[in-house]
Amino acid sequence: MGTRDQLVESTRELLWERGYVGTSPKAIQRRAGAGQGSMYHHFAGKKDLALAAVRRTAEELLAAADAQLRSPGTAVERITAYLRREREVLRGCPIGRLTQDPDIVADPVLRAPVDETFAHLRARLAEVLGEGRDAGELPATLDPTALAATIVAVLQGGYVLARAADSPEPFDQAVSGVLALLAAH
Amino acid sequence: MGTRDQLVESTRELLWERGYVGTSPKAIQRRAGAGQGSMYHHFAGKKDLALAAVRRTAEELLAAADAQLRSPGTAVERITAYLRREREVLRGCPIGRLTQDPDIVADPVLRAPVDETFAHLRARLAEVLGEGRDAGELPATLDPTALAATIVAVLQGGYVLARAADSPEPFDQAVSGVLALLAAH
Repeated sequence: MGTRDQLVESTRELLWERGYVGTSPKAIQRRAGAGQGSMYHHFAGKKDLALAAVRRTAEELLAAADAQLRSPGTAVERITAYLRREREVLRGCPIGRLTQDPDIVADPVLRAPVDETFAHLRARLAEVLGEGRDAGELPATLDPTALAATIVAVLQGGYVLARAADSPEPFDQAVSGVLALLAAH
Repeated sequence: MGTRDQLVESTRELLWERGYVGTSPKAIQRRAGAGQGSMYHHFAGKKDLALAAVRRTAEELLAAADAQLRSPGTAVERITAYLRREREVLRGCPIGRLTQDPDIVADPVLRAPVDETFAHLRARLAEVLGEGRDAGELPATLDPTALAATIVAVLQGGYVLARAADSPEPFDQAVSGVLALLAAH
C-alpha cells in the first residue's frame, strides 16, 4: 500500500474508533507510519483526509448493501438478507457514528458524504419496497419512502442499543421486530 | 442554582454538544463559572461529574417517556403519542449519542446508566405492547420484547438520519413507517 492509501486507511480506522473530534493529525501519522511532511504532501489537512476516508467507507457500505438488495428473491427476502447479514454490531456503523460528531455535522462539506450515503441507501431500499408493493407482497397503502427510512433507522438505532448494552442482543431484537411486522402482512 | 448543580448542568450541556471525549474539565469550569478548586471540592473529576450528569439526564428522559406511555388510551395510541411528541430532533438524544463515545462504552461505570436507561425504556414499551396484544389490538404472534427494541431503535436511528440530513424529515418518515406497520394490524 502506498503512503497515500496508508494515510486514508489509518484515518478510516481512527474515525471509526475515536471519531473526528477524537482524532488528531499526529495520531493519523503515527498509525500510518508517515511523517508530517508526507501527510501534508498528499492532503491539505485532517479535514481533507477525513473526506477521502469517509468517501471510501461510504462506497464500501453501499456496495455491501447492493450485494443483498440486488440479489434474487422477493422484496422481503432481500431486505431480510440485508438486515441479517453478518455485521460487527458492537463497533457500530462507521458512517452513522459520524452524525454524533459535532465538527462533522456543523461542516456542510464533511456532512455531505454522510448525508449522501443515507439518501442513497434509503432510495435503494424504497425501490425494493416499491417492487414488493407492486408484486402484492406488501400492502398497497404502505409508503415505500417512509418504510425505507424506518428500516435504515432500525439498523442505526440497533447499533446504538447494542453499544449501550455491550451486547448484539438488542440489535438482533430490533431487526426481528421490524421483520415480524413486515412478514405479518 | 448552587455551584454543584451549575457544574452538573454545564456538564450535561457539554456532553450533549461535544460528547465526553470532546469535553475538558476546563470547559466545564468555564461554562459553569466555577474554579478548579470548586469543581474538585464537589467532584472527584470529569468522570464523576459525567456520571452525575448522565444520571440526571436519564431520569428526565424516562419521566418524559412515562408521561406518554402511562397516559390513557390504547397501546397504539400511547406509543403514537410517545413517538410523535415534540423533540429537538437535530440535537439528537443526549443518552443515545453517548454510545458513540469510545471512552463511555469502554468504561463499565460510565456505560451503566446509558445501558440502564435503554433497558428501562424497552421494558416499559414491552409492557405497553403486551397490554395491546392482550387487548387484541396487536397480533398474538408479535413478541413485545423484540418490538420494543424496534421502536427504541427507530427513534435512535431516526436521530442519526436527521443529523445526517440536517433535517427532521427522515426522523418523521422513520416514525411514520413503523406506525403504519403497527396500524396495519
